[in-house]
Amino acid sequence: MAKADKINFSTPSGFPEFLPGEKRLEVYLLDTIRRVFESYGFTPIETPAVERLEVLQAKGNQGDNIIYGIDPILPPNRQAEKDKAGETGSEARALKFDQTVPLAAYIARHLNELTFPFARYQMDVVFRGERAKDGRFRQFRQCDIDVVARRELSLLYDAQMPAIITEIFEAVNIGDFLIRINNRKILTGFFQSVGITENQIKSCIGIIDTLEKVGENKVKQHLEKEGILAEQTQKIIDFIKIDGNVDEVLDKLKHLAQNLPEAEQFSLGVTELETVITGVRNLGVADNRFCIDLAIARGLDYYTGTVYETTLLGHEALGSICSGGRYEELVGTFLGEKMPGVGISIGLTRLISRLLKAGILSTLPATPAQVMVVNLQEDLMPIYLKVSQNLRQAGINVITSFDKRALGKQFQLADKQGIQFCVIIGSEEAAAQKSSLKDLKTGEQVEVGLANLAEEVKQRLQLS
Amino acid sequence: MAKADKINFSTPSGFPEFLPGEKRLEVYLLDTIRRVFESYGFTPIETPAVERLEVLQAKGNQGDNIIYGIDPILPPNRQAEKDKAGETGSEARALKFDQTVPLAAYIARHLNELTFPFARYQMDVVFRGERAKDGRFRQFRQCDIDVVARRELSLLYDAQMPAIITEIFEAVNIGDFLIRINNRKILTGFFQSVGITENQIKSCIGIIDTLEKVGENKVKQHLEKEGILAEQTQKIIDFIKIDGNVDEVLDKLKHLAQNLPEAEQFSLGVTELETVITGVRNLGVADNRFCIDLAIARGLDYYTGTVYETTLLGHEALGSICSGGRYEELVGTFLGEKMPGVGISIGLTRLISRLLKAGILSTLPATPAQVMVVNLQEDLMPIYLKVSQNLRQAGINVITSFDKRALGKQFQLADKQGIQFCVIIGSEEAAAQKSSLKDLKTGEQVEVGLANLAEEVKQRLQLS
Repeated sequence: MAKADKINFSTPSGFPEFLPGEKRLEVYLLDTIRRVFESYGFTPIETPAVERLEVLQAKGNQGDNIIYGIDPILPPNRQAEKDKAGETGSEARALKFDQTVPLAAYIARHLNELTFPFARYQMDVVFRGERAKDGRFRQFRQCDIDVVARRELSLLYDAQMPAIITEIFEAVNIGDFLIRINNRKILTGFFQSVGITENQIKSCIGIIDTLEKVGENKVKQHLEKEGILAEQTQKIIDFIKIDGNVDEVLDKLKHLAQNLPEAEQFSLGVTELETVITGVRNLGVADNRFCIDLAIARGLDYYTGTVYETTLLGHEALGSICSGGRYEELVGTFLGEKMPGVGISIGLTRLISRLLKAGILSTLPATPAQVMVVNLQEDLMPIYLKVSQNLRQAGINVITSFDKRALGKQFQLADKQGIQFCVIIGSEEAAAQKSSLKDLKTGEQVEVGLANLAEEVKQRLQLS
Repeated sequence: MAKADKINFSTPSGFPEFLPGEKRLEVYLLDTIRRVFESYGFTPIETPAVERLEVLQAKGNQGDNIIYGIDPILPPNRQAEKDKAGETGSEARALKFDQTVPLAAYIARHLNELTFPFARYQMDVVFRGERAKDGRFRQFRQCDIDVVARRELSLLYDAQMPAIITEIFEAVNIGDFLIRINNRKILTGFFQSVGITENQIKSCIGIIDTLEKVGENKVKQHLEKEGILAEQTQKIIDFIKIDGNVDEVLDKLKHLAQNLPEAEQFSLGVTELETVITGVRNLGVADNRFCIDLAIARGLDYYTGTVYETTLLGHEALGSICSGGRYEELVGTFLGEKMPGVGISIGLTRLISRLLKAGILSTLPATPAQVMVVNLQEDLMPIYLKVSQNLRQAGINVITSFDKRALGKQFQLADKQGIQFCVIIGSEEAAAQKSSLKDLKTGEQVEVGLANLAEEVKQRLQLS
């Protein structure tokens, strides 16, 4: 067979792929995340990878994302088909770079077929033409939930988000984490109170958001550059550094609300925050899982209320592993409606790659098979097939070994893939309707009647 | 809020999307298919949506697929970044049009990290720049399994495929189906025996493959056009129309094998087919689920042995709902190795769209929530939240109603989304630690203690 030897068959830069054990970890995480999302009634949607370019570019403020356009490649003799198929330039299309703009388009497309509040999850891959750097991919999977209303959206939806984050990260067992909660109105309200103009507030929030990354001195410099007075800067720094447990911070905020000038926006933010915190507690989230962090701003323009970040304790350098917030004008874009929403996002591909590198997560075995029925005697194959099917019917994943290989080699092959159990049946066992069950982890080998085999394997799988 | 009213926010032609109830059906089918795939030890992989163009174009014989190239769209002032980011034309990239070429590339990329026989499943979306017609999409999801070996691959892998197809379609309950099995060597062997030249065999197979679609007369005409003699054509037609139960057809084939001239290839095919059929039976597939159909050819060039198609009985016009076969030279392309493999594919997006249209499948409820805890009194919200969490911890999907709406309106909202149960708690119930459980399907309402609520709901969900 001729080798296509001039072809570079590596993945394009920034488009990585997982080995089976890594992909199985992703599948496990997706299943876990989905289970939690669905337990709160979020329903799945998936929008096409491809949207009209004008749709993707509708929100000007997200123009920093480099978008991939798509265009059919036709051999010269088939160019005519391009027009026939409606593949003309007038209908420019591109790959989606996030799941928020497509959500807005989805809601506009199906407004009358959806029920509001509309709570959806979406776990598609998205594409960004960014420079491929360590941990930055051009294709990656995000797990997003958003709940969107046509008029008002209760703050209790905001309160559910930390409960959902907690359940997910507790289920996947990645160690201690802390959900940091803030409210944009508190920040903008405070800025207003210390005399910062409306024009400056946006950039101030952007600067505050970089505090953890660049440090206090840089933040001061950047605020100064924006024309903020030294006195104002000091007030801001002192403010966002307010700490203590949740009740202490809430008390300080309420006290401030009574003393700040023009504190309407600020007070509204404090009330919202308190309502959210009460909800979070009523949902049973333990106090050590969340805090109020007044320095959490979220860089994105569109947040208008509650904002969240999640830090993996002891691994702060990883940055936020789940973030989000409340917005007013995001998903109604195509309808010209205000549609309040609140959502969170887990950048799963990046998270897996970083947690694997940091040794916080491990890959799964390369195969879902839990049992290998080995091939000891070719003439017993009908029995091997039957035993395999019986195990499968009991919910066990089984590989039947079809190749003629030495027994040791078959054990090796099973072990290499992470299969824990081998079922060995020779003529004697077959005649006596029994089998030898070998645990490759412990080396233990026991005799089990074929009638009890599935039960025995299931019990041993539960124990291990 | 200004409406972006000049934007056409519809999906691009050929890139459809599902409503929640349809997407939930897809998720259910994907889960079912995955469960069966994994029970046979197939492991998940996912290759990037984007590959180097030269990789996608490596197999010349698949050049009929119109490929979508991708290219970053940058505003004029940022064109410089395109080169910086390695986004140059020399690295032309495009969207994958199937999962077979990417599988070949994946194996080449990870040869030493994989265990062979390598049994993988892949359920990604693929892209084809085809003219969008009824039931033809430009983006669609395929569910593929293939098992690939580096040297020899037992025919029992071929035998597993009908067992897998049977389990999947029995599980999703779409009515009676028939897996039609053939072997390419039988066809090519027969063609050789009746004196058809090697050059003509490929197109003959292509023509035979269209029998069901175009009818016997057209097939005769097309064979004649290829230069096949009338006498040969008649022999071919008589041959592919051989029918009877599996054993009768096998007997006829074995009889023919002894009488045909130059029947080496033919005999090999018959032996292979018999081995596969024996395996299928040993795997417990019922005789009414499969047959030998000598007219099944599969149009694609690369099949060399067993081929399969699956027909939904009573809905033959839908075409094959699961097809595949054995090949020798497909996945070793980039390595210059012969790597025998066998695989099947379910074109899921198309299948769902057609089965929904034909009324064979129904959409699922629009939400995964099974229970709505209604909002009767705002001050009881802490109890509603706690009850909701208790239900969730028992594995039940719950929406807590946060909005202040009339009770009837809340029931309506639950019913519209397909939520079966509402939990109603007023002050009296709260004080007595009980609730009213209303079944929206039957209208029945019963009093249940809060301590037993989860158990009661679970039992009723199992019954319904």
